[in-house]
Amino acid sequence: MHPRLTLAISVMEALALFSYALSGLIEARKRRLDAVGAFLVALATAFGGGTMRDVLLSRRPFYWVEHQDYVIVIFAMAIFAPMFLKMTTRLVDERMLLVADAIGLGLFSISGTSIALDAQMPAFTAVMMGVVTGVFGGVMRDVLCNEIPLILRDSRPYAVCAFAGCWIFLGLHWLQVDSIYNVLFSTGFILVARLVTFKLDIRLPH
Amino acid sequence: MHPRLTLAISVMEALALFSYALSGLIEARKRRLDAVGAFLVALATAFGGGTMRDVLLSRRPFYWVEHQDYVIVIFAMAIFAPMFLKMTTRLVDERMLLVADAIGLGLFSISGTSIALDAQMPAFTAVMMGVVTGVFGGVMRDVLCNEIPLILRDSRPYAVCAFAGCWIFLGLHWLQVDSIYNVLFSTGFILVARLVTFKLDIRLPH
Amino acid sequence: MHPRLTLAISVMEALALFSYALSGLIEARKRRLDAVGAFLVALATAFGGGTMRDVLLSRRPFYWVEHQDYVIVIFAMAIFAPMFLKMTTRLVDERMLLVADAIGLGLFSISGTSIALDAQMPAFTAVMMGVVTGVFGGVMRDVLCNEIPLILRDSRPYAVCAFAGCWIFLGLHWLQVDSIYNVLFSTGFILVARLVTFKLDIRLPH
Repeated sequence: MHPRLTLAISVMEALALFSYALSGLIEARKRRLDAVGAFLVALATAFGGGTMRDVLLSRRPFYWVEHQDYVIVIFAMAIFAPMFLKMTTRLVDERMLLVADAIGLGLFSISGTSIALDAQMPAFTAVMMGVVTGVFGGVMRDVLCNEIPLILRDSRPYAVCAFAGCWIFLGLHWLQVDSIYNVLFSTGFILVARLVTFKLDIRLPH
Repeated sequence: MHPRLTLAISVMEALALFSYALSGLIEARKRRLDAVGAFLVALATAFGGGTMRDVLLSRRPFYWVEHQDYVIVIFAMAIFAPMFLKMTTRLVDERMLLVADAIGLGLFSISGTSIALDAQMPAFTAVMMGVVTGVFGGVMRDVLCNEIPLILRDSRPYAVCAFAGCWIFLGLHWLQVDSIYNVLFSTGFILVARLVTFKLDIRLPH
Repeated sequence: MHPRLTLAISVMEALALFSYALSGLIEARKRRLDAVGAFLVALATAFGGGTMRDVLLSRRPFYWVEHQDYVIVIFAMAIFAPMFLKMTTRLVDERMLLVADAIGLGLFSISGTSIALDAQMPAFTAVMMGVVTGVFGGVMRDVLCNEIPLILRDSRPYAVCAFAGCWIFLGLHWLQVDSIYNVLFSTGFILVARLVTFKLDIRLPH
């Protein structure tokens, strides 16, 4: 892989984890949880999807065992959460959080699909694994905070974007498109689909 | 195994999955979830028990990886859920749903016990695995929809029927009854026990 | 290991499981669950942490497969729960339950850390595994009963005590302190830290 691409993917990955952890901290803040609670919710949000995927695929070691430094960063974020959230609400506005979350969704979903394909899963299963990797962190966050998971309630397309993007990834994979371009394109598709449908306020029927 | 029996078991299995998925869709409908939410809840209800059993026994591939076609059917059910539910409420009345659910409970519980026995689990553990396989789908459905699981709240015997049936299966297994008759008899026992206690409105103390 | 120490640890272990199961039964009672519900909640509370740890570490057989007799005792406790709770509220007052729970927290956390170390996990991960083993049973109890987990809500130090104790265990392990003394000391630390911070009503910021 081209070293600049490896770097770009690492940066996107860190950004995705960071924004998922942040959404966990914000939710924890709303419920007035203490530092430990905030840490656990942030951890579950950031690593829930990947861990679920690894349990389902019998993959070891877990993502957060390989990336122990991320756990420590989230730990620090949770301890300094009160300060940190004040700082971020000044620096990071709603829109930026939405973008970061959409990057996370795209990257986690595509990486989940790609790993499931490597593990010889059939097509539909690989796509479902991708969607689970992308959305399960948010489900855990909401179950821990005693809410119906947002993804089940909100009729704006979220899992649907991931679902479509994973199929695109699969299609390009079958067409033997180079995997780097494929990852970038399908992640980009999910990102754009999420932002555009959000902006246009398109809603699923229910 | 006699080919007609194999067919009969496949039909019962499909019926069980279908009725579990349906109960997930109905619950999702009540909470006004969108199509994606309905799909995920239906999936969790239908495959939750089997997946939990396979995680606990380290069994792979998962049931829904082997039976990918069922996942696709549930996907279609969720998309057409609004139409579908209108259709089913005309065709399928409450009583039929209750019977289908009881068949599901019986079949899932007995298959769980049988698989746990094959994996050399001790008796009590095998029975508990059976009960978990039978009831965990419903627990996941209710946790996702932010309710106390019905099985914990409702004092009508449900897990108890599965529990008794699994012990009967184990007893007949020790007596070396032919496994086909054993499966049919114990599944039938759970089915009848559930329907009779429901009809007579027998309740557990609490 | 010295036979008297082995006995002491078995007794503490049984006490820990018993007190965790009891807290599950009390919670189930409050929600007016029936006998089956009470059993399942008690089971999840007592074995949830250890099972989660074993799933994360790919360890088999599960704790409750090796200790099937404990499952049967909890089963009996749930059946006789109404009588049992009346008896225990006479015998066991709040303070005793708090102590038993703190012993459980200490023992489960330290055993989790120790097992994770044996499985070659890095330091921070081993500590997190310990905390998860100690607290996850309570999280499952509260999710099943449809509450925000107590550990996330209550600002009195609980997971924090386990976290500190696990680091002490790790530190002494690096200093090559004999493992028996190490287990006793770190478990004792968690126990004392929990009781003292509770008594002094020390609270985490939130």
